[in-house]
Amino acid sequence: MDDRGPEPHRPVRIERWSPDGHETADDLVVAEEPLQVVLDGDPFAVIMRTPGHDLELVLGLLFVEGLIRALTDVAGAAVAASGLPVEAPPFPVLALPEAENLVDLRLSRPRPKDGPVGWQRNLVSNSACGICGAAALDALRADLAMLPSGPAFARTVISGMAPALRDVQATFDLTGGLHAAGLFDREGRLLAAREDVGRHNAVDKLVGRALLAGELPLHDRALMVSGRASFELAQKAVAAGIPLMAAVSAPSSLAVHVAHTFGLTLVGFLRGDRFNVYAAGERIA
Amino acid sequence: MDDRGPEPHRPVRIERWSPDGHETADDLVVAEEPLQVVLDGDPFAVIMRTPGHDLELVLGLLFVEGLIRALTDVAGAAVAASGLPVEAPPFPVLALPEAENLVDLRLSRPRPKDGPVGWQRNLVSNSACGICGAAALDALRADLAMLPSGPAFARTVISGMAPALRDVQATFDLTGGLHAAGLFDREGRLLAAREDVGRHNAVDKLVGRALLAGELPLHDRALMVSGRASFELAQKAVAAGIPLMAAVSAPSSLAVHVAHTFGLTLVGFLRGDRFNVYAAGERIA
Repeated sequence: MDDRGPEPHRPVRIERWSPDGHETADDLVVAEEPLQVVLDGDPFAVIMRTPGHDLELVLGLLFVEGLIRALTDVAGAAVAASGLPVEAPPFPVLALPEAENLVDLRLSRPRPKDGPVGWQRNLVSNSACGICGAAALDALRADLAMLPSGPAFARTVISGMAPALRDVQATFDLTGGLHAAGLFDREGRLLAAREDVGRHNAVDKLVGRALLAGELPLHDRALMVSGRASFELAQKAVAAGIPLMAAVSAPSSLAVHVAHTFGLTLVGFLRGDRFNVYAAGERIA
Repeated sequence: MDDRGPEPHRPVRIERWSPDGHETADDLVVAEEPLQVVLDGDPFAVIMRTPGHDLELVLGLLFVEGLIRALTDVAGAAVAASGLPVEAPPFPVLALPEAENLVDLRLSRPRPKDGPVGWQRNLVSNSACGICGAAALDALRADLAMLPSGPAFARTVISGMAPALRDVQATFDLTGGLHAAGLFDREGRLLAAREDVGRHNAVDKLVGRALLAGELPLHDRALMVSGRASFELAQKAVAAGIPLMAAVSAPSSLAVHVAHTFGLTLVGFLRGDRFNVYAAGERIA
């Protein structure tokens, strides 16, 4: 079998909640970091990814998108060492410092400006990426505000959100393929739910609904999502002023980072009456 | 609770396989369609989404991205009727024909050209969208080739892929947050696996690895992915020449459409020795 990349997870300190109370524990979350892709000196894309095999990732993306047809289309690359494949590529490669989330590629022929697929403008999202060009959280910090402290949410309100959202889902999702997002008040009442093939879209639909209803910012609401908690979802919650986000499944390292930075209470693995808290646990009563 | 949108699923005809053989059945898959977003006459983004609540989706996205701060920033919209909210928005809305996957928005103030977050260029992907500007499969058809007929894959090879990929995952995914993709030969041997917070990235990494190894097109390989099968994943498989893609979970309507169009054998709900075949079942022996 094939080689592994660098460790795909990051250590975090969490609070495990159960009906018996809560305790602090060490845990791991999946590593999520932005990768800036530069083509012939121009910023091409920012990809949220788990570090490792970065050169493969960019070559695969460019091949699938039709931007390169063969390895001879690549004249050279600069990439962090952990992103390199085991076998040396047939073009010169410059190793970057490990912290550089960057793949800088030079092509051996001019990039098609207006091919049948029409490149750069179409590298848009099946979700909405909020990584914001700088490939860092600095730009985000300039644009988003810290969430105000409070309000408190009862433990039982949090554990009640998962079955409430699942009830709505079970009624409408006959396909096993829909993600759901729900907005709850502090008493645990489900105010609105949206389903979509993309988790991010379901959250955007809730935020758009709240905008139309004149309810933003949502400072006394909780958001529940059906799957994992990514960076983008955490960023959307903060942008909408939502102080608590809960997910059925795991958060990513960057979601935890955003939650710490902006004071978002981040709950993961919400199942039955147990859940993990990754940031801002002081809102849970 | 809130209003529902249009039906979020589409009917398909499938083959259900089990150790006893296979039978044809009617089923539903989640609806996935591209939505073209136009701002002040300029193409802004293409979002893969489940139809319904389209205006909410676009308003929420623009709010989260900081492009609008209030409803007064919107001067008017054109959107298909099923994408309209129940309550009339406080700006003029033109109802488009149902088939138009379009939200056309006019803003009441100039769009920030270079705000702190730097808009359009950053609406890139946490995956790679392959929808390709035209918001239709026509452009894709011009760029991708029909897969050649054959080769055959044994039923037992297909049912063996899920546990093989899970074994690799179990070893390395300590977080519950990683997606996996594996490449198999016709005897069911796992040749390479990649894990990533983004399903699309895991597949791109496999394609990039194959490009570096001089193995493209992968006409005698099968691809297995750990979650759902979206349009983008099907498109990536076709671009890499892979004739069979299997997913642990559900495919989307557009993934099924792409599979039919390009002759990709699409397997879903691969669990134990049972699975569903959504297209090109003739490759399964």
